[in-house]
Amino acid sequence: MRICRFLDSENQAQYAIYESDRICPISSFAEPPASSKDIFERGSSWLASLPKPQPEQWQTAPERWLPPVADPGKILCIGLNYRDHAIETGSEIPTEPVVFCKFNTALIGHGATIRLPNISSKVDYEAELVVVIGKMAKHVSVEQAADHVFGYTCGHDVSARDWQKGRPGGQWLLGKTFDTFAPLGPCIVTADEISDATNLRVRMHLNGDTVQDSTTAQLIFPIAELISHLSQIMTLLPGDLIFTGTPPGVGAARKPPVFLKPGDECTVEIEGIGKLTNRCEAE
Amino acid sequence: MRICRFLDSENQAQYAIYESDRICPISSFAEPPASSKDIFERGSSWLASLPKPQPEQWQTAPERWLPPVADPGKILCIGLNYRDHAIETGSEIPTEPVVFCKFNTALIGHGATIRLPNISSKVDYEAELVVVIGKMAKHVSVEQAADHVFGYTCGHDVSARDWQKGRPGGQWLLGKTFDTFAPLGPCIVTADEISDATNLRVRMHLNGDTVQDSTTAQLIFPIAELISHLSQIMTLLPGDLIFTGTPPGVGAARKPPVFLKPGDECTVEIEGIGKLTNRCEAE
Repeated sequence: MRICRFLDSENQAQYAIYESDRICPISSFAEPPASSKDIFERGSSWLASLPKPQPEQWQTAPERWLPPVADPGKILCIGLNYRDHAIETGSEIPTEPVVFCKFNTALIGHGATIRLPNISSKVDYEAELVVVIGKMAKHVSVEQAADHVFGYTCGHDVSARDWQKGRPGGQWLLGKTFDTFAPLGPCIVTADEISDATNLRVRMHLNGDTVQDSTTAQLIFPIAELISHLSQIMTLLPGDLIFTGTPPGVGAARKPPVFLKPGDECTVEIEGIGKLTNRCEAE
Repeated sequence: MRICRFLDSENQAQYAIYESDRICPISSFAEPPASSKDIFERGSSWLASLPKPQPEQWQTAPERWLPPVADPGKILCIGLNYRDHAIETGSEIPTEPVVFCKFNTALIGHGATIRLPNISSKVDYEAELVVVIGKMAKHVSVEQAADHVFGYTCGHDVSARDWQKGRPGGQWLLGKTFDTFAPLGPCIVTADEISDATNLRVRMHLNGDTVQDSTTAQLIFPIAELISHLSQIMTLLPGDLIFTGTPPGVGAARKPPVFLKPGDECTVEIEGIGKLTNRCEAE
């Protein structure tokens, strides 16, 4: 099942089921949970148990998509998690996951605008598979990790390289969390629909040219290992997001380098998950 | 005015006004705002406009304190922001703020237990003045910054040094955000009560011994500069927290080094703000 979030004609945020380019708001055919996080906690079996929408309850696909998780408790991001990408950035192959994060003020939905800040001249693209946590996870093993995944969506880890690196203290956070630097969506695909998340093709198309093209088979730390590792340190809660890392082909590693400019259109495409498109504008 | 948050006898989280070691729940004498973040957005003038509690509405100080901000949108932390502390860690004096963060799963209130993780043997203490954001801030100047401060509280930036440093990628996040690593409170003191936040004494007492002792006059980047700087990058929202850095005297810099062990009692004391005490236990 695919779920999305959108702004309706009365400017209310709603969750909906998505199917064949049409949607059905959950509130139109079922009792929506008190908190949106309950959707992720209850999981796909709850979604599957809902009454079936009537034909007249379906609507055309939304014009105003929202990020499919409202206010996640965490946006975790894994750095250098594709072997070839670590090499292209001149970094060592990490021996354990490199973890940084973004804030919720960076989240935007499919179709929303990435704003290129005046104070950066090196904004780069990164296509990523994003895991949406379902049930709470603390101290879970690699074997148990899959039970804590609600589903998957597309994410774009927009990165101001001139704020990420070469600054005092070496912390990447600021370069990663400018407002609008975390496009997410359009839909979350529930985990039961993805038979094998360990071999999904992940691509970035920049103005129609494919600039990143790899598969999650290249992940140095697969999803189950990431969840287990993170859960040794912190409690993962329903709706928490994990951006799993980006394939080779980022703009900063190209010769000459390529950075995003106003008018550029970025599309993250992930096999079996969807296509997330956002256009860039100057701030 | 001082406000706090606590668990009442029915296990409900409540905001209260705190005065002379007694509290008055806001819900007992006024209409509480729909969202707790409204308290921070409305600011101290709103609090001052509330009806005065009746004598019988006051209660004794709570037994179960909660972190005085529920679910902040961000927990920003500034590294190496006291000149002497930067020197004691062998770091260069930063030429701009070093910024990292913690997740909300790390927050605990006054009196709650810091859990020392099995997978770290180097958990250290850091006393910090914490700023609570009031009105939204984006692209604000240093001169405007004070208008966006709701108030101040005490924070403890508990830090697993063996996870903060010497790991692949050099990101501090994991070492800073183990569950329970962000004690906060007991109260927020509204900004109008602090005539000069640029010269407040900040101390850490470890089992009664004073191990950190400095003042915010030593901040390399004062609060107004931090807010202005951060707001160039991201939108600061009501309730967002900024841990402003720690004075010299951390355990890792002592000879021999001192790390927290089960039974240790840590008290952050900040002049005019309060005393935040938390005891350590093994996980």
